[in-house]
Amino acid sequence: MADAAPAPAGLLEDRLLPLLRAVPDHPVPGVTFRDITPLLGDAGALRAAVEGMAAALPAGTEYVAGVEARGFVLGAAVAVAAGAGFVPVRKAGRLPREVLAEEYALEYGTATVELHADALPAGARVVVCDDVLATGGTADAACRLVERAGGEVASVAFLLELAALPGRARLEEHGRDVRSLLRL
Amino acid sequence: MADAAPAPAGLLEDRLLPLLRAVPDHPVPGVTFRDITPLLGDAGALRAAVEGMAAALPAGTEYVAGVEARGFVLGAAVAVAAGAGFVPVRKAGRLPREVLAEEYALEYGTATVELHADALPAGARVVVCDDVLATGGTADAACRLVERAGGEVASVAFLLELAALPGRARLEEHGRDVRSLLRL
Repeated sequence: MADAAPAPAGLLEDRLLPLLRAVPDHPVPGVTFRDITPLLGDAGALRAAVEGMAAALPAGTEYVAGVEARGFVLGAAVAVAAGAGFVPVRKAGRLPREVLAEEYALEYGTATVELHADALPAGARVVVCDDVLATGGTADAACRLVERAGGEVASVAFLLELAALPGRARLEEHGRDVRSLLRL
Repeated sequence: MADAAPAPAGLLEDRLLPLLRAVPDHPVPGVTFRDITPLLGDAGALRAAVEGMAAALPAGTEYVAGVEARGFVLGAAVAVAAGAGFVPVRKAGRLPREVLAEEYALEYGTATVELHADALPAGARVVVCDDVLATGGTADAACRLVERAGGEVASVAFLLELAALPGRARLEEHGRDVRSLLRL
């Protein structure tokens, strides 16, 4: 796929943003959920999104770490398009071998993400990938996991960044290079 | 990716099967879990698996329906490689809009998978995709969802088929065309 030049960002946003569906009051009253499934279901839009995200990866990316579950969808496709391997960052209790675990805060309580302890060779250049950047808590925990497993976080990549929320500021405060294909 | 001819099945198995990791007594004593994460993490093997699965899709496949969560990993990448759209089949309560639901039996109790009611246009040619075919219960329920949403199940595609288990027989009994890249 490397032979197709990526479309300029503005044109890509004009094409892809109308495919997102706003779901008011989901998952809780007052929150508007951005449903990416209509974009994923459109073959041309899906390919454009994957190629756009792959083209924006830092040079020398060796692994894409996708965050369960929606980060699996784009993460593996972006890995293939970029010639990288794919590493799953999973919810607690899902990986079958020895894991590293990181807890992060939710609005009420905490959640945990896990990575196989041997998932990465030392010094591997890794991009953490998820679908939507909101508060950044999950991605932040995934970055810590990658580093504890011996990898280097080259970038954190999202399909969509919700610019009104503090996710980018939080990740940048921790020294992360944040790349999002679309902004709302 | 259509310009690279797929490798013959035997050669692909010789290359990819050694990357699967057998995890004894997981998730319960007596069961050997087949961990596909080392294959996913190997960039060349991941690409070969995705291209092999995409090359085996029936002609005219319009959508790949991936089953949460591991079916998301290969499903979306196969969809991009085949020029199809991707539709997520999710666990109960995860999709934000109106859903169809199908229950299926587990060893103890039941589980439910869901699909957005408007995920497919009428008559859409859909391939249901998951990583491993074991008992076939989840894939069987996903096929019923696709049909209730108005789609046609053109095939059911797996990375790995566990030949000692009754998944293929169960799906074929329900008229499904089963295609697996690797067999163990």
